[in-house]
Amino acid sequence: MALKDTLHWRYATKSYNGDKVAQEKIDPILEAIRLAPSSSGMQPFKVLIITNPELKAQLQPICANQQQITQSSHLLIFAAWDEYTPERVNGFFEYSNAIRNLPASVTDDYRLSLLDSLGSMSKEQQFFHASKQCYIALGFALLAAAELGVDATPMEGFDSSAVDALLKLPEQGLNSSVLLALGYRDTESDWLVTLEKVRRDKAHMFVEIA
Amino acid sequence: MALKDTLHWRYATKSYNGDKVAQEKIDPILEAIRLAPSSSGMQPFKVLIITNPELKAQLQPICANQQQITQSSHLLIFAAWDEYTPERVNGFFEYSNAIRNLPASVTDDYRLSLLDSLGSMSKEQQFFHASKQCYIALGFALLAAAELGVDATPMEGFDSSAVDALLKLPEQGLNSSVLLALGYRDTESDWLVTLEKVRRDKAHMFVEIA
Repeated sequence: MALKDTLHWRYATKSYNGDKVAQEKIDPILEAIRLAPSSSGMQPFKVLIITNPELKAQLQPICANQQQITQSSHLLIFAAWDEYTPERVNGFFEYSNAIRNLPASVTDDYRLSLLDSLGSMSKEQQFFHASKQCYIALGFALLAAAELGVDATPMEGFDSSAVDALLKLPEQGLNSSVLLALGYRDTESDWLVTLEKVRRDKAHMFVEIA
Repeated sequence: MALKDTLHWRYATKSYNGDKVAQEKIDPILEAIRLAPSSSGMQPFKVLIITNPELKAQLQPICANQQQITQSSHLLIFAAWDEYTPERVNGFFEYSNAIRNLPASVTDDYRLSLLDSLGSMSKEQQFFHASKQCYIALGFALLAAAELGVDATPMEGFDSSAVDALLKLPEQGLNSSVLLALGYRDTESDWLVTLEKVRRDKAHMFVEIA
């Protein structure tokens, strides 16, 4: 499918038919997430992949009762670093330099200025910064899923503190950021599937300065 | 190019060769941005498309002197709503319902609860929320560009207050959120092009709960 058709085909699915998404289709979606870029390449998040029905049932009431939580085949929870600790930042550069066979000193100037700039942010601002990086990967996952004919729903509006507590995310230095349900649309019962996609027109969204 | 190859081909280009990206390739990248999903479909941002050399030269020193600012063919500035005013939120629902030929009352319950939930956020939190929506569109733009063989650099680390002032964004209720340079890589002078792509492995990034 051409990109343009993919973009029009996808929509925030409101009702799933319960079919499982095969692992052969889940893998490339996860690979798109894994290979998505992030600020300084730090990938400041983890992704929980939930297929367990009992856990989904526990999540649904704290996720605004959205039925996609339980109807979906796979529920992805993007959980961002709750802060950029020096250990985490330094750990990333150690990892990166080791993979590239570079001495640690190569990145020292950049690393120190990054620590400085991140350190000037509040903990909430640091979480927002990490959370934004999840959203790039979310975009990659959404397009990858659509290209594979897999339906998806990006979801905010959940009780993040309750989700964090249930999944013990703060103990891991993580906070839930955004959810992504994956599955196959139930065209019979999905009220959104027949409605026109609403987007602002080009003249409204773009400002060209030539 | 298969998605997997696209994901490996792209990288945050550090040096551009100065070649222009043709409008036929810019258009589908913009269309990916325009059709990207956003929270409640509100698309709370605009995108400035800068090709003017003098303006790029003015931006470079307030964008950490990153050479991609001036070397790129097109510089995109994602500027998010600085806050979710009731006028903006209500305006979106009016627009959406008009396009779908639906009476305003259809979305009243949802709209009012959304106004409530956005209203409980500080202005900074509202901007972060809007800014995250830019990052989904940024992800779409990055993948669209790569699929078209167009190089790209997502960029943070700029002086957002100075960029806002130069482009008179606050007067329009916008704040700069993230930049995207587009162009063609200069393989001779780009220090990053030969370095291995560093990503955490699957076991580190994903947690399966089956």
